[in-house]
Amino acid sequence: MKKVTLETSYIKTAITLADLARPIAQKYFRTKTDFLNKLDNSPVTIADREIETAMRSQIQREFPDHGILGEEFESYNLDSDYVWVLDPIDGTKSFITGKPLFGVLIALCYKTRPILGIIDQPILKERWFGAKGLNSTHNNRAITSRSCTSMADAWLYATSPSMFENKNKRAFDKLSERVKFSLYGADCYAYGLLASGYTDIVCEASLKPYDYCALVPIIEGAGGKISDWSGKPLSMTSDGTILAAGNTDLHTEALKLLNE
Amino acid sequence: MKKVTLETSYIKTAITLADLARPIAQKYFRTKTDFLNKLDNSPVTIADREIETAMRSQIQREFPDHGILGEEFESYNLDSDYVWVLDPIDGTKSFITGKPLFGVLIALCYKTRPILGIIDQPILKERWFGAKGLNSTHNNRAITSRSCTSMADAWLYATSPSMFENKNKRAFDKLSERVKFSLYGADCYAYGLLASGYTDIVCEASLKPYDYCALVPIIEGAGGKISDWSGKPLSMTSDGTILAAGNTDLHTEALKLLNE
Repeated sequence: MKKVTLETSYIKTAITLADLARPIAQKYFRTKTDFLNKLDNSPVTIADREIETAMRSQIQREFPDHGILGEEFESYNLDSDYVWVLDPIDGTKSFITGKPLFGVLIALCYKTRPILGIIDQPILKERWFGAKGLNSTHNNRAITSRSCTSMADAWLYATSPSMFENKNKRAFDKLSERVKFSLYGADCYAYGLLASGYTDIVCEASLKPYDYCALVPIIEGAGGKISDWSGKPLSMTSDGTILAAGNTDLHTEALKLLNE
Repeated sequence: MKKVTLETSYIKTAITLADLARPIAQKYFRTKTDFLNKLDNSPVTIADREIETAMRSQIQREFPDHGILGEEFESYNLDSDYVWVLDPIDGTKSFITGKPLFGVLIALCYKTRPILGIIDQPILKERWFGAKGLNSTHNNRAITSRSCTSMADAWLYATSPSMFENKNKRAFDKLSERVKFSLYGADCYAYGLLASGYTDIVCEASLKPYDYCALVPIIEGAGGKISDWSGKPLSMTSDGTILAAGNTDLHTEALKLLNE
């Protein structure tokens, strides 16, 4: 990939988007709202739509020629070099059961590759930020992922064992059997914990671009490694399998297990 | 069970214990400590021992003839009518991976039956309190569990699918297939969410008395129902299978599925 211009105005806008989202998520968390159901049966809250609407307006005011790919509404101008990839509430099931581990995910991609990412947890007021060439931060403090290189000592997170099917399930089980412990249920928050050095591997499947693009610059800027299960760098068109590790050696070993 | 005298001094002490534990848990959360491993390979932190030591001293000062059953140290005077059942950090895996859903669990049992319980989440500063004859509270506000009576609409929590083995796994899978969604990874916090009316069922196995005694008065005092998988009320000598539901009808239906 040739040199990318990551203008500071893009960083400023990304932070503004997270600041816009936070009070909306706070307002609807643990209130009784009417839940709509998508056809695929995944719950989506009023908060989801209100947050994405606010973020889209801001982007279109500041960068009318940038594209937008969001979870809730139609894509816009995806042929643009710069595309914002938004998940207003990642972890809707956490959100509607009152568990404060959901996150607002904001990414900026350049020619489909993520160059800037934010995970914001509005209730705990925790924010992870990453951008190409910068050290990732957690609440504005620099973070480093963990140096554990022994699979037998590694801690593994995945949102749910039921996100894996058939071949993917067998691959995940193989990895899961080799680590020290597998933990579940942390959504995007698990990637924040990995970037901050509190866990070693996050392995997931069936994710959409708005679920994973924001994670990439955060993991990489903390010293970690993230790819799909074949080892390819993530882009807006990846297949939705995700493997993140605190360092390259552990990532390589995990890749091998997934592809045995 | 004949009439129990739940003296207000017991309530005051229970709250003091939670107050003692909170700053200790806060002090060790997300710090790099040396982790000891028990023979069974479950991690135990310095925080665990420091909290239980502080709680035991307080109990022995105030009620020297009461018994104590704690996770970390030898049991004391279990023949007493009143026994304090303590888990200084329930969810040690959450704790050491930096996920703020672990809890300090404090229960008082009378003739082995839980009559008072606290779940305290020291990082989020959330506290659930329940006592026989009182309405349960969350941060001092009265709470009510949910009235969902349709299994197809019910939300189910369990700490991990890997806590179930053989017969228990088949029973859990049967229940899990019938609910709207199964979520994982919330430890004792899931029971707090159920008592507060944000989820419908928590179903677990392989729990120890210090993992479940504190939950009982909180669930019951919020209008929910909790028992072992055969429907028997929980005591200090139950078998470690736990089924909690937001209301009796849903509990009955879930019991039936577990025992089909």
